[in-house]
Amino acid sequence: MTFAQRTSTLKPDEIREMIKITSQPGFINFAGGLPAAELFPGKELIEASRIAIEKYGPTALQYHSTDGYIPLREKIKARMAKIGVDVPIDEILITSGSQQGISLGGEVFIDEHVSGDRDIVLTESPTYSGCFNALKTYLPEFIGIPTDDEGIIPEGLEAELKKYGSRVKLMYVIPDYQNPSGRAWSTERRKAFIKLIAKYQVPVLEDAPYRELSFRGEPNKPLKAIDESGMVIHLGSFSKVLAPGFRIAYIIAKKDILNKFTWASQGAFLQSSTAGEVIIDQYLEHNDLDAHVEIIRKTYKERAELAVKMMESEFPDNVQFCRPDGGMFTWVTLPEGCNSRDLLKLALDTKVAFVVGDNFFPKADVFNCFRINFASMKPELIEEGMKRLGKAIKDYLKK
Amino acid sequence: MTFAQRTSTLKPDEIREMIKITSQPGFINFAGGLPAAELFPGKELIEASRIAIEKYGPTALQYHSTDGYIPLREKIKARMAKIGVDVPIDEILITSGSQQGISLGGEVFIDEHVSGDRDIVLTESPTYSGCFNALKTYLPEFIGIPTDDEGIIPEGLEAELKKYGSRVKLMYVIPDYQNPSGRAWSTERRKAFIKLIAKYQVPVLEDAPYRELSFRGEPNKPLKAIDESGMVIHLGSFSKVLAPGFRIAYIIAKKDILNKFTWASQGAFLQSSTAGEVIIDQYLEHNDLDAHVEIIRKTYKERAELAVKMMESEFPDNVQFCRPDGGMFTWVTLPEGCNSRDLLKLALDTKVAFVVGDNFFPKADVFNCFRINFASMKPELIEEGMKRLGKAIKDYLKK
Repeated sequence: MTFAQRTSTLKPDEIREMIKITSQPGFINFAGGLPAAELFPGKELIEASRIAIEKYGPTALQYHSTDGYIPLREKIKARMAKIGVDVPIDEILITSGSQQGISLGGEVFIDEHVSGDRDIVLTESPTYSGCFNALKTYLPEFIGIPTDDEGIIPEGLEAELKKYGSRVKLMYVIPDYQNPSGRAWSTERRKAFIKLIAKYQVPVLEDAPYRELSFRGEPNKPLKAIDESGMVIHLGSFSKVLAPGFRIAYIIAKKDILNKFTWASQGAFLQSSTAGEVIIDQYLEHNDLDAHVEIIRKTYKERAELAVKMMESEFPDNVQFCRPDGGMFTWVTLPEGCNSRDLLKLALDTKVAFVVGDNFFPKADVFNCFRINFASMKPELIEEGMKRLGKAIKDYLKK
Repeated sequence: MTFAQRTSTLKPDEIREMIKITSQPGFINFAGGLPAAELFPGKELIEASRIAIEKYGPTALQYHSTDGYIPLREKIKARMAKIGVDVPIDEILITSGSQQGISLGGEVFIDEHVSGDRDIVLTESPTYSGCFNALKTYLPEFIGIPTDDEGIIPEGLEAELKKYGSRVKLMYVIPDYQNPSGRAWSTERRKAFIKLIAKYQVPVLEDAPYRELSFRGEPNKPLKAIDESGMVIHLGSFSKVLAPGFRIAYIIAKKDILNKFTWASQGAFLQSSTAGEVIIDQYLEHNDLDAHVEIIRKTYKERAELAVKMMESEFPDNVQFCRPDGGMFTWVTLPEGCNSRDLLKLALDTKVAFVVGDNFFPKADVFNCFRINFASMKPELIEEGMKRLGKAIKDYLKK
């Protein structure tokens, strides 16, 4: 028996494995990508489940065609039209979470080359580590594009596009309250980005799970809303605005591209959970998701502000961090030469966890950063956790 | 923009596309792989959903680790132990339907070779067409092993194992009430098969969604129960014994193999639906699944017997068909030289549908067969549908 070559790079995902460690009692968990469970609208979802099965049971519990439950796609269409993405429902495909959407992007665009030049995937640097897990199945080379507080740097992107030409098969970006950095792209950068991908004809996965979680009024429109080239493939999700447990997300793309995703889905997993789709459809039918998102925004904003206040008071002055305008994460940068993996050991000893930053870099070659999820921790835990973390950092820097 | 080479073979799946055609009013649909929706235990599942969210909401609606919800895996462990598969829960991984399990099998075992000898996947001939859709992503060559009424033919299998040696990376089989043929492997063939795969060390995906749907007492034990080589990777599912709408299935394999599936799952889709898992767990906690399976068995048996009776009376004598002992399908063989694709046109004109047989052959080179799903049609529709189909066959044979 032999395993495929690609499995040699498979390993347990550090972030998801951390769930096991941090479930010990007394742990303050800034690791993980979990949204705040206490905000899930349980009562409304019980009622939505009841209606879904009682009224639509033979549909909700049965197979359907791969593209997804039509009433839900119609509601997604209506929501997206309000933010400038006005597409027919046959340009919307339901997937089992956006992770599946990223993975399908690899299947559709990346050729495996076991020798010679590999196909190239461009990402922000840093970026969501799960995109590496999803796409490395197809053995691409990942090239990171530099970013700053305004988002991706267009000059850096164009340099790589010129250098690698048609070897670049796909780009993956998170323009809103990025995982892991917490940063959002400015309007100007968005425009410059869209021009470049139109010029170089590079398909882009726009992963937008945090877009709606803005702390300062209306968030930016998605890239998909300003894209005229048809290059943007938008990945939306109910995981962060409602609940991740249903694994219901969606891909919006031009029909000729989306067809490939749909046919690839048939092979990979047949279809998403009909029950999950019908339950979410019924939730949307009988509730105001925007009002619920407002509650999440308010709660996460309070937690972000408290986290920032605590980092300001507890962290040494030579430690930098992001002051996020939305989303679930902040990003901490230790002085040059530090390794957050060594800090993590001290932190775990005091029962506080974060995710080591090198996970988020295409070449895993930046060691002095780490990610904090403030969204899922209640205020008293943020206070206590930041105190523990501040002490661990001071102890680490003294060494 | 260029698509990956593998997408050139992607096309809409004929069977799943048929769902669109046959949803017209008045259609009698023997196509599709749908179980009988009227048997879904709606009331019990509403109650299970209520308990799942009310009592376990923060868990049921949240992410969990990739391997799946522990209480559900414990219940699967207990069920499997009763049929001779006694494994620890860390040898059980929850997947989004068994289609995902097959797809992961490709990722774990098949290397893509765009030139030179391709990796080989062995299947029964015929076999479930979705296995081709799932695995062709990794560009293997499919070799079909001849089968008869007793199941796979061991001599035919050994000939190919000898011929192709280490190029054979994976085998895919459905030993129980196979899709599409309706046939089950005899005990003797199972033993001979297990000897061969142990001798040649070939990993085997045992897809067993129909195993429990026996019409004549207890079904055979799974191959996994008699396998001592560790080569058998068992795919079980709740889709046919409870409902497919949750997309909850499971893989059982030796830890070193299962680890690869788990890590591949992290990249491909993170995890299955927590909500679906907790709902099914609560269904199992408060209901007797075996008693429910008994209802399905009884209903499908009646439908199978009626289908057989009608085929005996309505089909010409030179048309052969399977008399299934379980499952959802029967398989019809027209005289040599016929093409069921031409018959389908006549059948669709009279609003009755089946699935053309060439879909189920690795080389799509057998044209005189087709598949009938009797399980999802009520008796009066089976009667009427078989009459229409009998007439269509007679008209076709006259041409």
